[in-house]
Amino acid sequence: MAVITLTTDFGWRDNFVGVMKGVILGLNPAVALVDLSHELPPHDPAQAAFSLYTAYRFFPKGTIHLAVVDPGVGSERSIIVVQASGQLFIAPDNGLLSYIIDQAPIFKAYRLENPALALGRVSRTFHGRDLMAPAAAHLSLGFPLEKVGPEIKSPVRLPPLYPEIQADQITGRVVYVDRFGNLITNIPSPLVADWPAAEIVINIGPETIIGLSSSYAAARPGELLALTGSSGFIEIARYLARAERPPDLTVGTPVVINFVKPLSPR
Amino acid sequence: MAVITLTTDFGWRDNFVGVMKGVILGLNPAVALVDLSHELPPHDPAQAAFSLYTAYRFFPKGTIHLAVVDPGVGSERSIIVVQASGQLFIAPDNGLLSYIIDQAPIFKAYRLENPALALGRVSRTFHGRDLMAPAAAHLSLGFPLEKVGPEIKSPVRLPPLYPEIQADQITGRVVYVDRFGNLITNIPSPLVADWPAAEIVINIGPETIIGLSSSYAAARPGELLALTGSSGFIEIARYLARAERPPDLTVGTPVVINFVKPLSPR
Amino acid sequence: MAVITLTTDFGWRDNFVGVMKGVILGLNPAVALVDLSHELPPHDPAQAAFSLYTAYRFFPKGTIHLAVVDPGVGSERSIIVVQASGQLFIAPDNGLLSYIIDQAPIFKAYRLENPALALGRVSRTFHGRDLMAPAAAHLSLGFPLEKVGPEIKSPVRLPPLYPEIQADQITGRVVYVDRFGNLITNIPSPLVADWPAAEIVINIGPETIIGLSSSYAAARPGELLALTGSSGFIEIARYLARAERPPDLTVGTPVVINFVKPLSPR
Repeated sequence: MAVITLTTDFGWRDNFVGVMKGVILGLNPAVALVDLSHELPPHDPAQAAFSLYTAYRFFPKGTIHLAVVDPGVGSERSIIVVQASGQLFIAPDNGLLSYIIDQAPIFKAYRLENPALALGRVSRTFHGRDLMAPAAAHLSLGFPLEKVGPEIKSPVRLPPLYPEIQADQITGRVVYVDRFGNLITNIPSPLVADWPAAEIVINIGPETIIGLSSSYAAARPGELLALTGSSGFIEIARYLARAERPPDLTVGTPVVINFVKPLSPR
Repeated sequence: MAVITLTTDFGWRDNFVGVMKGVILGLNPAVALVDLSHELPPHDPAQAAFSLYTAYRFFPKGTIHLAVVDPGVGSERSIIVVQASGQLFIAPDNGLLSYIIDQAPIFKAYRLENPALALGRVSRTFHGRDLMAPAAAHLSLGFPLEKVGPEIKSPVRLPPLYPEIQADQITGRVVYVDRFGNLITNIPSPLVADWPAAEIVINIGPETIIGLSSSYAAARPGELLALTGSSGFIEIARYLARAERPPDLTVGTPVVINFVKPLSPR
Repeated sequence: MAVITLTTDFGWRDNFVGVMKGVILGLNPAVALVDLSHELPPHDPAQAAFSLYTAYRFFPKGTIHLAVVDPGVGSERSIIVVQASGQLFIAPDNGLLSYIIDQAPIFKAYRLENPALALGRVSRTFHGRDLMAPAAAHLSLGFPLEKVGPEIKSPVRLPPLYPEIQADQITGRVVYVDRFGNLITNIPSPLVADWPAAEIVINIGPETIIGLSSSYAAARPGELLALTGSSGFIEIARYLARAERPPDLTVGTPVVINFVKPLSPR
């Protein structure tokens, strides 16, 4: 049973997501459909890129990930199919697959152009339903990847996800805010996790945090803390106090980690 | 593998939708369940009717659509099972299936009354769980349609979906607002799509739009535009500017399209 | 085909729920996954406990219910696997399974400790993904319950769900507010349902209701009414008037039912 995941900014209020599933099940009724996220900020491929990047590795080999955050629908932008890390990814060529491609040792990318993979009538405003959903279904049935369209070498890339690293400092930023108000940074946990707590000073906006905590529960309610988050990046959280998060701490806020001793092999 | 879709105003916060799925899977574990929409405006069958009408055609033949927007639950209103366009529909008899029935060349409708299709205990307030979910499951297993209850000839109808058409004017209205703030009208795209742009003037509330655009991306951010939407109807959108949508443009707002030359066969 | 349900406070905005499903499908691709609720109030095990308690009985025998509302993640709290009423339940040991256990004639509870059931790397902040999801998948494949970890006799309990019953009075409270604004009490319907309407006086906060109504539709719009809700408990509703619900009627509000004659066998 193939797995197809769906990542969109379509929301749950309308029938867009359900209709894409109808198209897929009409072609391959034996597929397992998983909603990854549909409440992503509208028209922001970077947030979707990060969400997909932190999720895909938990899916089985051969999973097909369909991601539609597509402010350019109807323009000349391409739709691409990417093979990387043993999985397939279908998305508009707007950077959405950027972080997946950046970290893959090798990848193959194709422009989705084969009309045999499209619905009979293709609208100008819903390529998720008319082009990407049927392509995902056909690929789940074994349609050969190299026949979806011409191979391309340079899919659109976003600015790199990873932070700037200096001898005694890492300069990153908040890249995602989750439902609990946790601020997810682009600083990989392994860069920081094993450092002695007393030797780390984290500045986020006007606030300062000393050291990493071991868990949310290690903090007093309302206290700001930093910890190695479940997505593989350093997170800044205020335990049990979502409402009190200062509104100036959000996506894009710089996060600077200073090490008391220079950053070097230990 | 049968497909059953669910359309409700139950929201995602409570367990209502999940419980309906439990009932269905208890009777037919091999069914594919698809959520069409659960955030429809509470107690408004017309919005649900439009959502289901624009969605069902993307599902495979034999799909069973279960729709529950049911302000009359517990009153004398019936539940009906309708066969139309090769699919089955189960809903309260409050007009929810109106647009499906209106456009079907033929349809059959039955009042759901057979107690063999109900849960052992039927509550007064949750017929989606106690009557409609088990009926959907039994029908997906091949229960004969004509045994669900007496056939009826006149299910409850809403006012017609389609607009008033005159020689040089189409008078419609906004019937749905989607998550992106796009205003979906009841004016079928084919009536307008092939008209030369310069010959179409669209009035929506106090605003005027000249001609149809080819896609969202064809507009400047913030600009109001009209286009042939993915649901088959003319949509009015303000590209990348949901927040700025004037609050007086909403469901019910009249939309008048004037043609510079009389509307006639070309 | 095994059924696994998911109950969390993770919301739909992030990829947490989808990622848990990826982990499960990677181990058992033939499972039916059902979302019970993901919009539960964050960090409040009692609301989740009530939601799960009113839902589980509508699922087939052998269903596995995974519930994660876990303010103590990363602390010393245990994760438990409970067998009760022919189904399995996996949750943090924080009272979430309390009402299920309270009402089960017998139950067995085990602390989830077997490392063979965990993902290779266990984070400190996402045990739903790293411990509970793989345990659910392994159990759905027949992993023996008694090997998940040591049996425990006293899982954490919340204060009892059920109300205080006196000769002529039942003293309960609101325990849940649903999307429609219906106030669900902890007073089981059978205690009240067969009483003559004129002999029942219900006080909720400053408001008084005489008797039970037979359905929402039996009331005039805006009228406050009490009825036997679909979850098995008395509900207080204001028909078609969610917005007008006084904000002082909410979870925790006392609900007192007075009987004109003493409560006794009839």
